[in-house]
Amino acid sequence: VDIVCLLFDGITALDIVGPYEVLQRLPDANVKFVAASAGEVRTDNKFLALVADYALDGVTSADVLVVPGGFATRALEADAQVLEWIRAIDATTQWTTSVCTGSMLLAAAGLLEGKEATTHWASLNRLADYGAIPTGRRVVEQGKIVTAAGVSSGIDMGLTLAARIAGDEYAQGIQLGIEYDPQPPFDAGSLDKAPAPVAEFMISLYNGRV
Amino acid sequence: VDIVCLLFDGITALDIVGPYEVLQRLPDANVKFVAASAGEVRTDNKFLALVADYALDGVTSADVLVVPGGFATRALEADAQVLEWIRAIDATTQWTTSVCTGSMLLAAAGLLEGKEATTHWASLNRLADYGAIPTGRRVVEQGKIVTAAGVSSGIDMGLTLAARIAGDEYAQGIQLGIEYDPQPPFDAGSLDKAPAPVAEFMISLYNGRV
Repeated sequence: VDIVCLLFDGITALDIVGPYEVLQRLPDANVKFVAASAGEVRTDNKFLALVADYALDGVTSADVLVVPGGFATRALEADAQVLEWIRAIDATTQWTTSVCTGSMLLAAAGLLEGKEATTHWASLNRLADYGAIPTGRRVVEQGKIVTAAGVSSGIDMGLTLAARIAGDEYAQGIQLGIEYDPQPPFDAGSLDKAPAPVAEFMISLYNGRV
Repeated sequence: VDIVCLLFDGITALDIVGPYEVLQRLPDANVKFVAASAGEVRTDNKFLALVADYALDGVTSADVLVVPGGFATRALEADAQVLEWIRAIDATTQWTTSVCTGSMLLAAAGLLEGKEATTHWASLNRLADYGAIPTGRRVVEQGKIVTAAGVSSGIDMGLTLAARIAGDEYAQGIQLGIEYDPQPPFDAGSLDKAPAPVAEFMISLYNGRV
């Protein structure tokens, strides 16, 4: 399985490392990290650099494309080179996927028109600006396009995809390998579940940024 | 909060990116990635490189130390330089933490003697070789030392620690920010929960490797 992961400056690291950690365990997985130019990209806080071994023009196809998010996607929605590359890779894929605001890039590339899709809760309404149908589900499958909600949802998306590609038992083996038996100390991971003051504060924090 | 994350070749990326993604959202967080020498480290499959901006001798203290795991830790248990650095940093920390087989390094450094601890299920029994008391809990707090189970557990550990450092509401805000409302498609993330054939296969796959 040829898995291609897009990187860019201002990425949210967990958006891409979550699905990577699942999908790299597929049989015969080959994972390529790709950015506008080869070399380091940094998270928006500058603390962590991930390395793109490939430039966009060095990768022309994929079995699985994973497009992550981050505050940087707002600007990338207008980046013709990145959007054209996403469209070109999508034309070759078996699965085109996104995590968090990565779906805003799929949407801006025209791939979500008339399709249900999700993204980080703070961007959800904006999906409709591109003709997508925003839904609150955590992992949304529409044919070969799979979008996932904010940041950590990429792990759930990766396991869903692993099952489609290699079967339920194989995906369960991956889940056991990464010991994904989630036990968060709180149940505050969605706007519906978080205490109202927490949700209100976070809405104001993200307002207009993604 | 001065957060120091150890990196090394052969790391499991999600082990460190999970807690990083949570802890970098703490108030005034400053995160340093540190390795034997500054520059790239690669995951054991070589697909992904993370960048250490600091060498071990360039970092002499931390508020929070995070030690991740991976197949490489088996060899690092005998790496005097790394173990000495862990001991020296631990002498300065408010919290010394690990994910997955990172706890084998804390154990080899002598920090877990007589303490309850956890690690990836495939290494759990070996903790006792270093005088630790293996437990099956996902996040194990013993004073300032917090160990977490395999790979994905670092997210739960990060949120637990975030609550200790900044309070429950702040940690809930982080959980909402990373939309950590886990919905894995299967319930196979522990040896008890995985179907028996899956568990048996994975036990054989990991046997002797970590």
